[in-house]
Amino acid sequence: MDRILFFLGLIGTISFAISGAVTGVNKKMDIFGVAVLGVITATGGGIIRDLVLGELPPAAFREPVHALTAIAVSIIVFLPAVRKRLDDKRMQGTLLLITDSLGLAIFTVSAIQTAMVSGTGYNLFLLVFIGTVSGVGGGVLRDVLAGDVPYIFTKHVYACASIAGALVCALLWNIAGGVISIIAGSTVIFTMRVLSAKYHWSLPHA
Amino acid sequence: MDRILFFLGLIGTISFAISGAVTGVNKKMDIFGVAVLGVITATGGGIIRDLVLGELPPAAFREPVHALTAIAVSIIVFLPAVRKRLDDKRMQGTLLLITDSLGLAIFTVSAIQTAMVSGTGYNLFLLVFIGTVSGVGGGVLRDVLAGDVPYIFTKHVYACASIAGALVCALLWNIAGGVISIIAGSTVIFTMRVLSAKYHWSLPHA
Amino acid sequence: MDRILFFLGLIGTISFAISGAVTGVNKKMDIFGVAVLGVITATGGGIIRDLVLGELPPAAFREPVHALTAIAVSIIVFLPAVRKRLDDKRMQGTLLLITDSLGLAIFTVSAIQTAMVSGTGYNLFLLVFIGTVSGVGGGVLRDVLAGDVPYIFTKHVYACASIAGALVCALLWNIAGGVISIIAGSTVIFTMRVLSAKYHWSLPHA
Repeated sequence: MDRILFFLGLIGTISFAISGAVTGVNKKMDIFGVAVLGVITATGGGIIRDLVLGELPPAAFREPVHALTAIAVSIIVFLPAVRKRLDDKRMQGTLLLITDSLGLAIFTVSAIQTAMVSGTGYNLFLLVFIGTVSGVGGGVLRDVLAGDVPYIFTKHVYACASIAGALVCALLWNIAGGVISIIAGSTVIFTMRVLSAKYHWSLPHA
Repeated sequence: MDRILFFLGLIGTISFAISGAVTGVNKKMDIFGVAVLGVITATGGGIIRDLVLGELPPAAFREPVHALTAIAVSIIVFLPAVRKRLDDKRMQGTLLLITDSLGLAIFTVSAIQTAMVSGTGYNLFLLVFIGTVSGVGGGVLRDVLAGDVPYIFTKHVYACASIAGALVCALLWNIAGGVISIIAGSTVIFTMRVLSAKYHWSLPHA
Repeated sequence: MDRILFFLGLIGTISFAISGAVTGVNKKMDIFGVAVLGVITATGGGIIRDLVLGELPPAAFREPVHALTAIAVSIIVFLPAVRKRLDDKRMQGTLLLITDSLGLAIFTVSAIQTAMVSGTGYNLFLLVFIGTVSGVGGGVLRDVLAGDVPYIFTKHVYACASIAGALVCALLWNIAGGVISIIAGSTVIFTMRVLSAKYHWSLPHA
């Protein structure tokens, strides 16, 4: 279980670091700005999760692997050869969709797992709320710091996918155990998020 | 006392949820964006209060009533029949002024009450600071996330009203008891905020 | 040691309060907006540091000296006689560079000192990360709240200076003791930041 979670967390970190770094490149930031935005996007959700649960200092501050991975990924995104390929807008759109969806899925379920082992007791609402806040947190920080209105407010069923997957994960936890709940929850989030973008599902606008 | 605080908290939640949801509708967000902005505005001040006091996880994560109320209120604001009435700019202005003032007043005094029972001891400066930060926090988050410069920086005697009411509430606490302090403090804030808007009180500009 | 830190902290507070208040004046805020931006810039880094380390409530909430100093400084910046002198753009640029660099240097090393005495144990990565986050935090809050893209993302070797000084400070700590580490670390940050601005050092842009 611990190894699965570590591996998933690393995928989430890499995914969100890519989405942050690509945003930085699009905003014409220098290499440090790109790395900073990559790190904040990749670690933001986990830091929010640990602040809310009182697990201080947050894991991102105690374990270098996440921040160092995010920095390495950001530098790779910044390499001229890689950046040139990102000029193809369709490819960039697909990359951002996949990485952002993976990050959303993984950070949502990982927050539920952290809450379950932190001794706050089983509280369905707390699990879903903390899962969603941690899942969307990194992307919200990315958008606010880059000067954009957060994606969560304008497009697709973003928060909705995170809430649905968090519900699935939290409801299954006592029945099917942690591993299956985590896989089921993250699959729901990733699938809903990608399909809603691909088929332009949309919610009523004001 | 507990019942009064719960009831006041609910009014504060509803007020800030309305102000967040109306902002979202004005920004042409879809129904989820509107609900998310409503929830963040309504729970933001209380989450900041609990993070600062170390009361973790914050009440907003433990007790569903606040977030669920905020979601319900946001959906009502989003209903076409309600939205149409909000097109009347004068009515919208009055609604936003009343709800934002009520939220400011209630979250300021409720943070002082939470601090008093949390065992940090009587520290006048801490009480006023935490009252003000929690009072204005929800509105600041709303404005930053909606891409606006926070209201607190540009208009009227916003922070000033919160500080004045927090001072009244904290100074009265040991003399007159919690209930009277809470009523007096929130009345000062609401009255100052509404009167300053109505009579265009203004502070020197740069 | 305690006296040195208190004195340094006060210089950091005054520096960041000036940079926040000048930003507020440039944005045509009223006197309360200017004071609020001054206080948030001056206390933001320390509040982030204490939230991350779990030292709650944060020192800024317990000890009035920082916030009251920041308010006093902001009011002085707002005085017509002072403001008029700030209209000279070259003078304003120099003032902002010096104060922002001092604040960056002092809040970076002060966070390392707080972490060292907080009992989290010696963890080089944690020390550097928390130093950098606390150092840049006040300025990031200032820029986000003022509606600007944070300085850290667009200019010079800002985060780089903070990281370099934090590394120097943390590496020296067990060898040379706290006082020398703090002086060496903050000198590195201040010098790198000022020289990079003066000689237009720049990092590769996308």
